[in-house]
Amino acid sequence: MLFGKACRFGGRARYCVVKPLACLFTTSSNMAKSKFEYVRNFETDDTCLRNCYIVVRLDGRNFHKFTEQHKFTKPNDIRALGLMSRSARSVMEELEDIVIAYGQSDEFSFVFKRTSTWFKRRASKLMTHVASQFSSSYVFYWKEFFGEDQPLLYPPSFDGRVVLYPSNRNLKDYLSWRQADCHVNNLYNTVFWTLVQRGGLTTVQAEERLKGTLAADKNEILFSEFNINYNAESPLLKKGTTLIWEKRDETVTKRMKLPNEEEREVAVTRSRRRVQAHHCDVIGEQFWEEHRDILEDDNC
Amino acid sequence: MLFGKACRFGGRARYCVVKPLACLFTTSSNMAKSKFEYVRNFETDDTCLRNCYIVVRLDGRNFHKFTEQHKFTKPNDIRALGLMSRSARSVMEELEDIVIAYGQSDEFSFVFKRTSTWFKRRASKLMTHVASQFSSSYVFYWKEFFGEDQPLLYPPSFDGRVVLYPSNRNLKDYLSWRQADCHVNNLYNTVFWTLVQRGGLTTVQAEERLKGTLAADKNEILFSEFNINYNAESPLLKKGTTLIWEKRDETVTKRMKLPNEEEREVAVTRSRRRVQAHHCDVIGEQFWEEHRDILEDDNC
Amino acid sequence: MLFGKACRFGGRARYCVVKPLACLFTTSSNMAKSKFEYVRNFETDDTCLRNCYIVVRLDGRNFHKFTEQHKFTKPNDIRALGLMSRSARSVMEELEDIVIAYGQSDEFSFVFKRTSTWFKRRASKLMTHVASQFSSSYVFYWKEFFGEDQPLLYPPSFDGRVVLYPSNRNLKDYLSWRQADCHVNNLYNTVFWTLVQRGGLTTVQAEERLKGTLAADKNEILFSEFNINYNAESPLLKKGTTLIWEKRDETVTKRMKLPNEEEREVAVTRSRRRVQAHHCDVIGEQFWEEHRDILEDDNC
Amino acid sequence: MLFGKACRFGGRARYCVVKPLACLFTTSSNMAKSKFEYVRNFETDDTCLRNCYIVVRLDGRNFHKFTEQHKFTKPNDIRALGLMSRSARSVMEELEDIVIAYGQSDEFSFVFKRTSTWFKRRASKLMTHVASQFSSSYVFYWKEFFGEDQPLLYPPSFDGRVVLYPSNRNLKDYLSWRQADCHVNNLYNTVFWTLVQRGGLTTVQAEERLKGTLAADKNEILFSEFNINYNAESPLLKKGTTLIWEKRDETVTKRMKLPNEEEREVAVTRSRRRVQAHHCDVIGEQFWEEHRDILEDDNC
Repeated sequence: MLFGKACRFGGRARYCVVKPLACLFTTSSNMAKSKFEYVRNFETDDTCLRNCYIVVRLDGRNFHKFTEQHKFTKPNDIRALGLMSRSARSVMEELEDIVIAYGQSDEFSFVFKRTSTWFKRRASKLMTHVASQFSSSYVFYWKEFFGEDQPLLYPPSFDGRVVLYPSNRNLKDYLSWRQADCHVNNLYNTVFWTLVQRGGLTTVQAEERLKGTLAADKNEILFSEFNINYNAESPLLKKGTTLIWEKRDETVTKRMKLPNEEEREVAVTRSRRRVQAHHCDVIGEQFWEEHRDILEDDNC
Repeated sequence: MLFGKACRFGGRARYCVVKPLACLFTTSSNMAKSKFEYVRNFETDDTCLRNCYIVVRLDGRNFHKFTEQHKFTKPNDIRALGLMSRSARSVMEELEDIVIAYGQSDEFSFVFKRTSTWFKRRASKLMTHVASQFSSSYVFYWKEFFGEDQPLLYPPSFDGRVVLYPSNRNLKDYLSWRQADCHVNNLYNTVFWTLVQRGGLTTVQAEERLKGTLAADKNEILFSEFNINYNAESPLLKKGTTLIWEKRDETVTKRMKLPNEEEREVAVTRSRRRVQAHHCDVIGEQFWEEHRDILEDDNC
Repeated sequence: MLFGKACRFGGRARYCVVKPLACLFTTSSNMAKSKFEYVRNFETDDTCLRNCYIVVRLDGRNFHKFTEQHKFTKPNDIRALGLMSRSARSVMEELEDIVIAYGQSDEFSFVFKRTSTWFKRRASKLMTHVASQFSSSYVFYWKEFFGEDQPLLYPPSFDGRVVLYPSNRNLKDYLSWRQADCHVNNLYNTVFWTLVQRGGLTTVQAEERLKGTLAADKNEILFSEFNINYNAESPLLKKGTTLIWEKRDETVTKRMKLPNEEEREVAVTRSRRRVQAHHCDVIGEQFWEEHRDILEDDNC
Repeated sequence: MLFGKACRFGGRARYCVVKPLACLFTTSSNMAKSKFEYVRNFETDDTCLRNCYIVVRLDGRNFHKFTEQHKFTKPNDIRALGLMSRSARSVMEELEDIVIAYGQSDEFSFVFKRTSTWFKRRASKLMTHVASQFSSSYVFYWKEFFGEDQPLLYPPSFDGRVVLYPSNRNLKDYLSWRQADCHVNNLYNTVFWTLVQRGGLTTVQAEERLKGTLAADKNEILFSEFNINYNAESPLLKKGTTLIWEKRDETVTKRMKLPNEEEREVAVTRSRRRVQAHHCDVIGEQFWEEHRDILEDDNC
């Protein structure tokens, strides 16, 4: 374990300089090291193309088993979705160039602004950092969402990938794709588990029943058989979670003493950036018109 | 959150088939989704070259600050090194194609066998999975090593990279490079902190004192001024930690009943593979000769 | 050499099917081949990111020596520039997705439209095809430009690279960069060779004379010492060559016989696309406004 | 066109230095250029992994049409094969790190030694240079092989790719794969065209006749119906062409005058490296044992 400013400089180890003459008289461990250092040249450059949005998407590994063993409620476990968002917020707060993140089910996508120079845009660094921060946060905040009732039984894991999008249209279509996926899955799962939990069907029967049905059919089953209006379901479940940065003015009262005045209370207002969650539609244009600062101009 | 066999098939969501005719009469969410699906084609293939060792190395992010805030002992914190190894073992147990792992300080390298086909050798999947499993394990096992005295204050993170090595010589040189780095750093840190903690120097003075010194000089300072024989220091600190798979015969006693016999106790022996830690030299040939099954033949 | 439809199908060789049973009785050359076929998997995918302009730039290799040995006139050889353009046109006519090409000196850049799917956007195929077609054309058309006086002494070569540009702005800036390079070099070379050829300086003296001079200084030397107005120089030399596709209506007279009519001459007009050379400014917006069909919209 | 040492330095253009103060008073073309220079950063690094053989394979584009239009004899045109080899030799002589090349039909593979640092191992440079040199040579040497009878009608082109092989075994298997491909195709084509040219079958009938036949069947057709012993065919056709470097001692007679002696004739012997063509088997070990200097040791 390396400690203190004495041994690390700018993130890299610092070594004393070996005087050439001295090397003739003593074997130096630095010399031994330099003999092997050629292996560094086997690293390849994976810099992301400039002027493209960098998307890192994480997916839960073996989460079917994980949700079973941790007794997640079905079709949706609000605690689990909250933990996913909390972990995603932790990622955004660590990597400030992320301008928007979108999550649903056991996946979360993080979008770096197109002009970002984080990690010199090295794909491997970006995706491993996101995967690492998300995973350690997921374990760290577990108890906040699952309390003492459901302990975490083993460390879960997520895998990730990097995808580049050159235009605003491509990026919006990517997020639309994920949100459409959220909708399709959630509608299916809602009907499926309603048929099982309230309709008394086995999972095989429920699957059979839904084969070939359209969205309208599923809505109809929910409404006519179970008196459920799918449109009235929670936006969190239907739309997933969109995290963006928002500026808030915060006013605090401070006791101050100005020259030639008595000390007195002064209201100090300052603008603070914080991560805000939305559960709204991102497929249409309204969201983007209301948050024009998320995307940069294509013509750059 | 997706649940159950009803909605996931082979890790990918399964959707009902949309009948073409029906599409004329109802807007389908599947149709909406397919409109955006083209964004998938922006993913690039990052398959690792065949017949090369795949090395994933993780490094702690901002660990200088992290070690300060969690009051790690200096120059080495045995608890922290234990936690690193525990997390690395967790990675090896999840990704069986890792044949050897080597760690020191706040870094750990994992070597996949050259014929591995895990994740179809996709670099992004391999490195994010390793980073994620390691990080969640680090938080999960924290208390096992730091107890109640030192709570984990925030989720730490690690970044990673992938490097390929085509030959056994290259791979051994890579591991030698990391072990030589361990040695150089540990000797420096040991002298540095001895000068500070026992010699009463400030960190600036200690740094000044060590400027331009060789390994022999540092050994001499330790020995003549503090009566410390560096060679007698713990191998864990001098050599780092090497994790490999080892087969052990395990004998358990089971009560069995064979036909026409009384039930009785029988000793059953079976071979089990488990991760074993070593703190030995990997630069010389001895280690490799004693563990010939780690590396595959170059001529393949 | 493979011939005829009998042996090539869609560009790949077609082989007869080996019946498994038969393999037991005879060694099959197909079997021998399939044993080695695994080496195919070492090929990596180098698909260019979608929705980006693909630029292939070629540069002459060792052209200093080549121009000396073929006695190119200095500072510019009109024949050589003509041959470069002719070869570039040959490339554009073979690879229709090239929307614009720009050349100067011994280099030429080819821009594939952002939605191109030529060669499935595989970078290696695109750049080698361009390099190959250009080089064979350069030799093929040599005599058209250099006549019998200056035979080609040996086959020249060009190297190439691929660069991706995500936005129209980036692409225009790329072409502006090459044209600014053309201008800077041409002004320098014009003054340099005027000083040598007409001013009687040695090349070393001319170099010395120009050290530290600005564009204005160089213009002044040409004007006051040699009565040359640089602005009146040929646009071909100052601006380089831009090749684009242009539609032309072509009217030809054909003898036709319509039903119930005498055969007679009819004027038939049809639109034909052909490569047109320009020697104009591409840095300002005028060129792009006059040729709006070259670039696709950013918002796609 | 850039000329002379005055304007090119180390292959890159050299520009005069712009004094900062002067920039305030005059617009500088260098300034204009530097504004666009950021586009350089869009280039990506495509360095080939160290310690791997780099194979560049070229394939003729639309060679079916090309061979028809240039009336190549079938099934093999000796002139065309000679021209391919001549062009490949031209490539080897220009890029000395190529240790072996193998060609058959309209394809040629070039193998760079595993420790090569040509073009800093940049894949794009290596493959475009090979493609370019090969193509210009093909046109340049055409007349040497086809004489005046068959003029070249248009410039042909080849596309290329780069593949890396980490071990000697992999590289040998790659070459074996291409040679097995040569054998399979040549046997097929030989029978096919014999059936057409001497057996009087149409190409459709010949194709039908050969459907499902094994190597033994094809040998039998040739032997029993046309009295042709395939094994006695030319090795050039059955085995393709392997080009390697060979050292030859060359003795020339020079008139020399040593001090205090009469001038007289002296025999001077020196070792020269030249490209040598072989048409032998490269699948078995014999070839490699006879030419041990082609491959480098795996254990490096």
